Amino acid sequence: MEAASTTVGVIGLGYVGLPTAIGFLDAGFEVWGVDISERTVAMVREGRNPTGDPDVDDLVPAPGTPRWHVTTSTAEAVPHCDVVLVTVPTPVTHDLQPDLSYVESAGRAVFEALPGGTNTVVVLESTVYPGVTAETWLPLLEELGLKQGVDVTIAYCPERFNPGDPAHGVRSVARVIGCVDADVGQALVGLYAQLTSEDVRYVGRLEVAEAAKVIENVQRDLNIALVNELARIFPALGVDVEDVLSAAATKWNFHRYTPGVGVGGHCIPVDPYYMIQRASNVGVPANLITAARAVNRSMPVHVAGVIRDLLYQAEVPAKDARVLLMGWSYKAEVGDPRETPAEPLADALLEKGVRVGTWDPHLDEPLMDGVTVHASLEEAEGYDLVVLVTAHKACLEADWTALHSRMRTPILYDGRRVLDLEHLANAGWQVHAVGRP
Amino acid sequence: MEAASTTVGVIGLGYVGLPTAIGFLDAGFEVWGVDISERTVAMVREGRNPTGDPDVDDLVPAPGTPRWHVTTSTAEAVPHCDVVLVTVPTPVTHDLQPDLSYVESAGRAVFEALPGGTNTVVVLESTVYPGVTAETWLPLLEELGLKQGVDVTIAYCPERFNPGDPAHGVRSVARVIGCVDADVGQALVGLYAQLTSEDVRYVGRLEVAEAAKVIENVQRDLNIALVNELARIFPALGVDVEDVLSAAATKWNFHRYTPGVGVGGHCIPVDPYYMIQRASNVGVPANLITAARAVNRSMPVHVAGVIRDLLYQAEVPAKDARVLLMGWSYKAEVGDPRETPAEPLADALLEKGVRVGTWDPHLDEPLMDGVTVHASLEEAEGYDLVVLVTAHKACLEADWTALHSRMRTPILYDGRRVLDLEHLANAGWQVHAVGRP
Repeated sequence: MEAASTTVGVIGLGYVGLPTAIGFLDAGFEVWGVDISERTVAMVREGRNPTGDPDVDDLVPAPGTPRWHVTTSTAEAVPHCDVVLVTVPTPVTHDLQPDLSYVESAGRAVFEALPGGTNTVVVLESTVYPGVTAETWLPLLEELGLKQGVDVTIAYCPERFNPGDPAHGVRSVARVIGCVDADVGQALVGLYAQLTSEDVRYVGRLEVAEAAKVIENVQRDLNIALVNELARIFPALGVDVEDVLSAAATKWNFHRYTPGVGVGGHCIPVDPYYMIQRASNVGVPANLITAARAVNRSMPVHVAGVIRDLLYQAEVPAKDARVLLMGWSYKAEVGDPRETPAEPLADALLEKGVRVGTWDPHLDEPLMDGVTVHASLEEAEGYDLVVLVTAHKACLEADWTALHSRMRTPILYDGRRVLDLEHLANAGWQVHAVGRP
Repeated sequence: MEAASTTVGVIGLGYVGLPTAIGFLDAGFEVWGVDISERTVAMVREGRNPTGDPDVDDLVPAPGTPRWHVTTSTAEAVPHCDVVLVTVPTPVTHDLQPDLSYVESAGRAVFEALPGGTNTVVVLESTVYPGVTAETWLPLLEELGLKQGVDVTIAYCPERFNPGDPAHGVRSVARVIGCVDADVGQALVGLYAQLTSEDVRYVGRLEVAEAAKVIENVQRDLNIALVNELARIFPALGVDVEDVLSAAATKWNFHRYTPGVGVGGHCIPVDPYYMIQRASNVGVPANLITAARAVNRSMPVHVAGVIRDLLYQAEVPAKDARVLLMGWSYKAEVGDPRETPAEPLADALLEKGVRVGTWDPHLDEPLMDGVTVHASLEEAEGYDLVVLVTAHKACLEADWTALHSRMRTPILYDGRRVLDLEHLANAGWQVHAVGRP
């Protein structure tokens, strides 16, 4: 699978698929990018970035770039491709079940477009739980009369994209590949090794690679849940959890995580449900993973309770309290509201009659019914309490003195433990923070 | 607190206290070592190592070494000391409550021996939960009419000893110090900086340092519990958990832990109960920490069930099954049976009528009623199944071919995921392992 003789298709030009397609283009491959959204395809064709990830802004190829094709039609693209990468979303449904409909529909579109007899390699990159790739795609192959090893070979290579962290983009993360055919697995190692400078490894069956991706996020959820649980315990003991974590972090094998108002995004709050669901299907308890999820999922509601208590202590009239959420994205420097803890936090405030506004320098669209969106921080005035929800640099570097002068009650709650609270207290703020007594 | 002018007392010459006392001696201090055990004191005085930790074997000072005093009498030692370090055990009671009786009795003996007016610094190094040092020792000071800052100042500096890991001995681990008096805290930084080459930090109140130590072990318990929970889930999905963990470990921020038959020792299976107890006292749930403890605590019983099932599958008569536990210590290269998972594992086998034997190259004393102890592996014969419980080098390098020839049924269960199972299967063993389908 040398660049000069291999055409790569990428289905789904989102925050993973678009940089992946561009990465293979830069590595010298002929690339077909496909997205079902007409808007996305139109923007990419014009050289514009539809993903909301500022790291991609300067990367989208200009119109007319050689070896670069973008279309809404899977049927048009697939016959040109030797390898097709599927990078579609796998959200959770409202009842916390994994929603595999995009994996199925994208797979169907690809398989229907296969010319047959070409043994095209189709790689799923979306996060799924162990068994999904085979369970979702093999019945489609059967239905369409396609044979593995003759018409198509399926593989799984989880994306490990870390939004807002250019040091771990698609060209600089290690990859693992699962495939029932070891030769194809090794060929894919050769392919991805041209994309990334880091380790690429064939790990055996599809399920091993699927499981690896899920447990990476499960472990992260668990470690964040621990510091969040500790952030509830230590203030009750009169101790600031951050002092304890910083002291513990001097030990050579301690993993430093920071408590916060909750975890968000498309992976950490989602993947553990896949694992829990799968364990439940085979009758094995996943009590620990479930307990971790419960802690992180309850953080926004917990923080909302703390905030209402601060308003009460400050004698802000309950019928007229106003809270400003500074940052709405789930993660710093990213304009992505998916699964953001800001939403359940706002919800828990709104439902008790607190009025909620927000300012996020990376988001400007309307976010949620009942939440006032300020296009600039200068617009925000008359609030009783400001919560730092997202540690965007623009939030940390905001003019806190000017904001203080526009507050009705100058209460500050640092939901990310990133502000210099001593300095802000000296500037007149009543300072509070997650995990602080 | 320069070495030339400072005398250090160490109360408790166990696996922490003895190397600590020797460390300060080597750093040039006058040292008084105290232990209530006549046997321990007699051995140390003769230059012998009573701790069972082979790393200490060559370190114990010869009789007549200058600046080195060893006694059973706290009353004799303390008046000579500027600083007294208390390194006594803090086990859990049978109902899983922290047993603070040694901390109290050692503290009482030290305080009763204080000459008064010397502002002697007394530092607790034992693992305790936040608040214990003050709650246990301040009432004693009051009772004895001693004043902090005049007669005595108390401090807390948790030991971070890692048995069997010479790279992280007392002279090469970072330390944190909690003390109500910041000047004394800083003086202790100067003292410990002469003991260890790593970072020494004053972290504020006693409670912060106490909490730091506990959460280090809580975090470790949690991460081990996760891989143990996964080791139960993945085999049910037909996947080997070690393949998944190795694949995930290629990601830059994954923490690699290995599943096993259970965790043991004086810290990890103990400290989380301190935290759970303390959280419970202030009415905050510690569900995640509790769930982690439950997973790790149940591993030996889970493994015993798997083993009984393997015996059943192999048609070994239930009334005559014999299992050999290879290794009994809780940790590789350490001769320490405290809280070892071997004990509940043996218990769960014995109670179903399975006969249990063990061989541990680092332990020779009788370990548990009903368990046959073999002084050498050659003595072990006629067994149906061998479980690798402790990854002692001597176990890994045992003559597995000879052992195979002495087995009645050659079933092998790798409880630490350290054996080359493919090689052993080729040598005729029926191989199984924790987390393997």
